Parts: sequence; C-alpha cells; structure tokens
Amino acid sequence: MAKEKQFVKDVADMEVDFPQWYTDVILKTELVDYGPVKGTMVIRPYGYAIWENIQNELNKRFKKVGVKNAYFPLLIPESYLKKEAEHVEGFAPEVAVVTHAGGNKLQEPLVIRPTSETIICDMFAKWMESYRDLPIIINQWANVMRWEKTTRPFLRTSEFLWQEGHTVHATHEEAEAETQLMLNVYKEFAENALAIPVLTGKKTEKEKFAGAVATYGMEAMMLDGKSLQAGTSHYLGQNFAKSFNMKFLDKDGELKYGYSSSWGVSTRLIGALIMAHGDQRGLVIPPVVAPIQVVIIPVAMHKEGVLDKANELKQAFENAGIRVELDSRDASPGWKFNEWEMKGVPVRVEVGPRDIENGKMMVMRRDTLEKQEYALGDVNAILDLLKVVQSNMLEKSRKMRDSRIKEADSIEGILQAVETKNFVKAPWCGCRECEDKIKEQTQATSRIISEDSAENKVCAVCGKKAEKVVVYARAY
Amino acid sequence: MAKEKQFVKDVADMEVDFPQWYTDVILKTELVDYGPVKGTMVIRPYGYAIWENIQNELNKRFKKVGVKNAYFPLLIPESYLKKEAEHVEGFAPEVAVVTHAGGNKLQEPLVIRPTSETIICDMFAKWMESYRDLPIIINQWANVMRWEKTTRPFLRTSEFLWQEGHTVHATHEEAEAETQLMLNVYKEFAENALAIPVLTGKKTEKEKFAGAVATYGMEAMMLDGKSLQAGTSHYLGQNFAKSFNMKFLDKDGELKYGYSSSWGVSTRLIGALIMAHGDQRGLVIPPVVAPIQVVIIPVAMHKEGVLDKANELKQAFENAGIRVELDSRDASPGWKFNEWEMKGVPVRVEVGPRDIENGKMMVMRRDTLEKQEYALGDVNAILDLLKVVQSNMLEKSRKMRDSRIKEADSIEGILQAVETKNFVKAPWCGCRECEDKIKEQTQATSRIISEDSAENKVCAVCGKKAEKVVVYARAY
Repeated sequence: MAKEKQFVKDVADMEVDFPQWYTDVILKTELVDYGPVKGTMVIRPYGYAIWENIQNELNKRFKKVGVKNAYFPLLIPESYLKKEAEHVEGFAPEVAVVTHAGGNKLQEPLVIRPTSETIICDMFAKWMESYRDLPIIINQWANVMRWEKTTRPFLRTSEFLWQEGHTVHATHEEAEAETQLMLNVYKEFAENALAIPVLTGKKTEKEKFAGAVATYGMEAMMLDGKSLQAGTSHYLGQNFAKSFNMKFLDKDGELKYGYSSSWGVSTRLIGALIMAHGDQRGLVIPPVVAPIQVVIIPVAMHKEGVLDKANELKQAFENAGIRVELDSRDASPGWKFNEWEMKGVPVRVEVGPRDIENGKMMVMRRDTLEKQEYALGDVNAILDLLKVVQSNMLEKSRKMRDSRIKEADSIEGILQAVETKNFVKAPWCGCRECEDKIKEQTQATSRIISEDSAENKVCAVCGKKAEKVVVYARAY
Repeated sequence: MAKEKQFVKDVADMEVDFPQWYTDVILKTELVDYGPVKGTMVIRPYGYAIWENIQNELNKRFKKVGVKNAYFPLLIPESYLKKEAEHVEGFAPEVAVVTHAGGNKLQEPLVIRPTSETIICDMFAKWMESYRDLPIIINQWANVMRWEKTTRPFLRTSEFLWQEGHTVHATHEEAEAETQLMLNVYKEFAENALAIPVLTGKKTEKEKFAGAVATYGMEAMMLDGKSLQAGTSHYLGQNFAKSFNMKFLDKDGELKYGYSSSWGVSTRLIGALIMAHGDQRGLVIPPVVAPIQVVIIPVAMHKEGVLDKANELKQAFENAGIRVELDSRDASPGWKFNEWEMKGVPVRVEVGPRDIENGKMMVMRRDTLEKQEYALGDVNAILDLLKVVQSNMLEKSRKMRDSRIKEADSIEGILQAVETKNFVKAPWCGCRECEDKIKEQTQATSRIISEDSAENKVCAVCGKKAEKVVVYARAY
C-alpha cells in the first residue's frame, strides 16, 4: 500500500484490490456519482465529456456507412415485448414498468425500453412498403433501463446511455453483411479511438442476444485479465420481421419479410477505458476521447509574464483544435501535477519564468510519465505527441493482451489460466452442458468463438470431438 | 384549395386550415411519426437532424458561458417531488409512475422525470461544501415525460427531448444574472440560428414555473398569429436550496443556502421553426439548422459528364463545410424540385449539360423562390447565399411579427386583436382575476410582462390603475 499512498491519497492499490481502485478512481476524478435510486449513476461533467467524445467519434463513423440518427419513444407497450418469444424471456425479468400516468391507472402497462427492437420494428413495418424503401439503417442515442441486482457505475447500472442501431434489409445476405460491417466499425473505433484492442467473433447460443439468430461481440481485456463485452452486433434474421409483420413488396412482385440487424455500445465503454489504461496514479485517457488533451500548468505564476504566456499558449493550442485547459488556480504546481495525472490528461505542459527566458516548455506525457523539453509554443510538436500517445497506448494494451491469451485443454487448465489473469482458448464440442460446466467450475464464460481450427482437437470438458475453439474469460 | 393542390398533394392549404397544414407537412416530410403509445412521437432522421443541429448550436453557446454537460437519472423517488410544495402541485398531476421493476413491486414509486430540479438539487447539495465549489453550472440533454391530455408532435407530447440547465450560486445577484444571461443566450440563438425573432420578458405569477421565484420566457409568433413559448429561464431563489438542504460554507465562515436557476428549451423548437417559416409548398428551414443546406439536382443526368460534374460539385461543397445532398434517384427533375421544396432545403443547385457547357449553374433559394445563375462551382457564392437566406428569413419574420403587435385597452380590443392573428399589448392592474377573465373571454393568455411603461394607464379589464403592460396572445 506504500506505493499507492505516494501518488494518490484515498485510492486503493490496483495490484491489491482492483475493484476498489476502480471505485476510488471514478469517484475521486469526478467521472461519476451514485444516484439516489439504487443502481443508478450520475454522469458528472468530466465523465460525460468522454461520452460526448465517444458519440462524436462514432457519429463520424456511422455517417460514413450511411447510418442516420433518429429517436423512438421511451415507453413500450408490454404486449410488444411479448411478440418475440425469446426476446420477452430474456428481458421481461429486468424491466421497469409504468402502471400509472397522469393520475390514472393505465389500461396497458408500459415498460421502459430495455432495448428498442420491438418498437422500432413496429415503425419499420409501417415505413417499408416496397424494396425501394430498403434498407432502413437507423441509430438512436438513448437511455435504457435494465433492473440489475448487482450494479457498478458504467459497468452495470439500472439505467445507462447507449446507441442502438436497427436495420432492415431485403435479403439475408445484406442483413448479415450489415451485422459484420458494424462489428468492424466498432472494432476500428475501439482500437483507434479508445486505444483498446478487441477480440471479435460470434457468441455461443448461450451468450447470444434474446431474439437474435446470431450475436457477434467484441471483447476487451481489462488490466485484471477479465473481459469486458464492449459492444455487440446481432443478426436477427426474420425473427422480428415475423413478429412485427415487417413485409415489403419485392422486385418480383412478391410480399416478403425483411431481414434485420441491431447493434449497440454503451457507457460501459467508459468503464472499459478506465480499466484498460489506468495506473496507480489514476486515469490514463487516450487523447482522441480525452475531455482535456493538454493541461497547461504555470510555474511561479505570479511572476510577471508567466500567466500571459500561459494564456497565449492556451490560445495557440485551442486554435489548433486541441482541447486544452489552463490551470491558474491558486495552488502549488506539485498539487496540480498530481490532480491532472489522476484525471488522466494525456499531456501536461509546464511553463515558468525560466522556460520563457529560454524559449522552452517542459512537457510530460501521461502514458509513460516521460518528460521532455520542447520549443515554447511548438503546437505541431504537441499535436504529434498526442498521436504518439494514442498509438502507444494501443500498442501497450495490445502487447499486454497478446501476452495473456493462453491455451488449455482441460477445465483445470482453463481455471489456472483465468486465475492468473488470462483469457484462455479451449476446444469445445459445441454443447451447452460443457459450457455450463466451465462457468460453474471456473467462473469463466465463453466470450467468443475463435477463428482457430478445431481440427484434431477434443473438447476440454467432455473429451468428445471439438467443433470450435472458444475464448473463455471471467467477465464484467 | 386550388392553390395548394398546385404545389403539394395531400397537404392542406395553410390559409384555410393551419393546424391541418402543420400535421400534413410534418408527416409528409418525414420529420416525425406517431408512436404506438398515445401522445408519443417518433422523431425520424430528417427531424432528428434538425435537433442535432440545434444541439450543436446551443452547445457552442453554452461552452462560451461556462456551461458543462452532464447526465442525471431518469427516475426520481416520488418523495423528492414532494419536497418543494409548489413544484409537486405543478407536476404531480402529469407524471408517469414506475411501480414495479425487476419483477417486484417497488418500495417507493419512482416517477419519470418531468424536469430534474429535485434530483439535481439533491446532487448539488452533496457537491457544494464551500464557496469555492460555486457556482455549479450544469446542463443535461435528456428525455422528459409529462402526461398531457391533448398532444401534437413537437408542440406537446408526453415524452419530449430537451436540455435543462441547472445552476447554484453563492448570492442572489449571481443567480439572477445567470437567469438573465441564459435567457439572452436563448434569444440570440433563436434569432441567429432559427431565424425566429422572440419577445423576452418576465412571466406573470399565474404563468410561472412551479417552484420558481420568477420565470422569464421567450415567445415566438407563429404564422397564424399565435404564440409559442420557445424557452424559459427560471430564477429559483432559495426555494429548492431550502427543500434540498443546499448549503455551503461562505467566505465569512457562515453556513448559507445557495441560490439557484434553471432554464430549458425543447423539441418544441422544431415545431416553432415549422410554423414560423413554412409556406404552401411545405417547410422552409433556416440554413444554420437545416439537415441539408444545399441539394444538387442533375438535369438530364444520364447524359455524359452530368453526374460526374454533379459529384464534383458535391465534393467541393462538402469540402467547404456545406451539408449537401446530390439527388441522383431515378426520377424527373420536376418531381425532385417539388420534393426538396417541400422538405425546405434552403438552396437548390441544378446542373445539366447546357450549364456545364456554359460553365454555369442555376441556383434557387427556398425562402424567396428566386432563381439566379452562378458560375459553375462557385462555392463562395453559395456560402454567401446561405448567409443571405438566413438573415432574410429572420428579417421577414421580424417584419411579420412587428406588424402584428397591436395595443388594446379593453377585453373587446384584446379579443379583436387576437382574432385577427395578432399579439396584443394591454395595461394590467396586476391581479389574477383580470388575467383569468381575459383568458376566459378571449382564449388569450399573458405571455410576458412588457418593458413598456404603464404610467397613466388603466387596466384593460377592471379599469383600475395599471401596474404593467402585458403581452397577450393565444398560445400553443
């Protein structure tokens, strides 16, 4: 515990108690607070700014692949949820239900959307008449509600923010292609915006979305070796089309059901980047989504010219499109260094009387804690450094992740691997029973089905011929 | 009705039936659709894009005045609503209530936020310890729910999207100044982004927000002479501070209650811009918030080089930051002209073989329907034209509005003025009874208290000495 005290007061040592470190860091950096209703969170400005940057980055990518944003109602008639058999089974136990409104008991209870397939498919059915109306490719940014027993800010809360994309196509092939396309958009985003390398692949039947034909997930490794499901993309086939009568007149003059997909990422991503990049000093936020990319700390700021120069720097950085903050509060530079390191700001620039005299500025990068001198006001050097920090964070994460994917051919092997903070690949016969057994005995779940060949391999559980190789991990 | 048919099929004549024109236009242009639950709306991509532009424009302005975005929970314990006496009286009758969640009856019912003063003040109380923590200036973009009996898309729906700003300050003066500052931000935004001139001023006691010390509103005149309350800013004094124990240690070492404000605008603004600018052909959207600012229509598009040139133009416009769409669908130019006029795109560019030969493009502006030839690819001319359209729309609205503010000194005068589609200024003694009488007999309500002097005037209702001059109008 001695090491931790050195950096940040009241933050647990991550090596000793990772969950406590997480809680301490998110509260102390004012990313989040607990709401008054159990299981809810307040996303404070510093946390919400990360979410806004995530939204901007995703919106840019969505636009490029023809996704349009829209907004659908929060409340869904209970009967809608029941139209797709698997879907209701999956979500009914965790919905919040509105029974009264405007002073009266409602004729039909309304559920707060746990996800919006039902209400969106109902609208799609109305909007699709002919093949000319297809595909419909729509996304919404919204709050959703799933009444969870155990909650943790960002990772699992009764209400969370997310985006949910919903599409309908004329053919199976197009809908499948859309499902894959969006999975790849997420993967590229996770790597290049969040600096988190992800494994992507199909989920097993047990882990798939309620109502989907197939679910594809992306899994990110956290510093404690656990996996966090960072996004999913579902191929829904005609399941919802048939439940919601999503028919269209095809080119051949026949009335056909459409094929749909849905895909989403949520405020969990904020949890992911905290647990993928943090260190003993606190957060380490990748520049692309950092609320503040550069903080300027004036040294001996009451000396003549220091604050002027600091403000000049701030203006120059801002003009270059850098999100910059000048900390001119009445506190010591050392105190400010700790504060902004804890808050994970990627680059710190110090400027004092001697720097100004020498035409220099001292720059520290948060990811490696390395310091280097640059020419005072060299904006391009800072822009370059932000890129270097971004790509270094991804590479560091990738190395960590790659070194921690083990292989096993027995339950004991799987247990040993996950207990030493690894993902583990193991052959699988394909049956639910073996999957359950692994979860029971190791607390690891199947994350994705790997692309690795299962040829000549046998199931790690039952010893029968393996059909697939599966990646297992303990998961958030 | 003959005139209308000429332009848009299935859209009512706005001169004959304005409400029907509104409904026809918003559905036909695919801004919105009705949700399955009574009183709810689906904001379709074309409508949502306007909302996103409104958000961007407001966020820019918020940032300049130190507002930070955050997110607070949707569900509020019923007991919170009851802590501020006036507040609960105002909102309790229209809340939607969650009584069950996760399969169980809740111990305390939760209401879906109709507005978030209560939950945000509760958090502020936690975050403010000393005067150094003040002011707190926070905004959230969120959905809210108010169970309304009569609903119309954008204007009044049970769920709507809005932003709600909440602030707490150390002194009365600062909180009052913030209330005024934000009212002015809204006013500047309404005029320069939405091209809607607004009257701003204090509301009467009868019309103020439940729980406020004073409410300031901005009122916009619609084409039918009715007023639409387009935004409000409330000075809350210590009302919520006392109910939620928002105390801080002041410089003088004393524990004091803070002073708060709140302010908001909503998706009503979309309704406002439709009814402020539309015409017989459909929507007229101001360039600053238009989803598509310029539409390019290729003429004889299957002729060699036409589509190439159209694409080149599109690229050039996009590079200049213009939101542009190239309509290369297989339909006649005439059909496309009507379609995009109905959708209110501010500028249309036609390009055909002869234009290309002559190095020209034909440009039509939606606000005046004037056509003019420009040099082919003259991006700066288009950028200038967008600015001209924007300012012309504001001036046109301002002239219309100014010509329709009448004065009256009797109920009959007020009635006559509002029946002929005007706002009307009338002196008022200040008593609730007279205000009620006017509403009863004219269906007009007091919109704002004017800055005009009431000296030597008598109340239009009771004939007693006038305290104020009030602006009355029938309102949405």
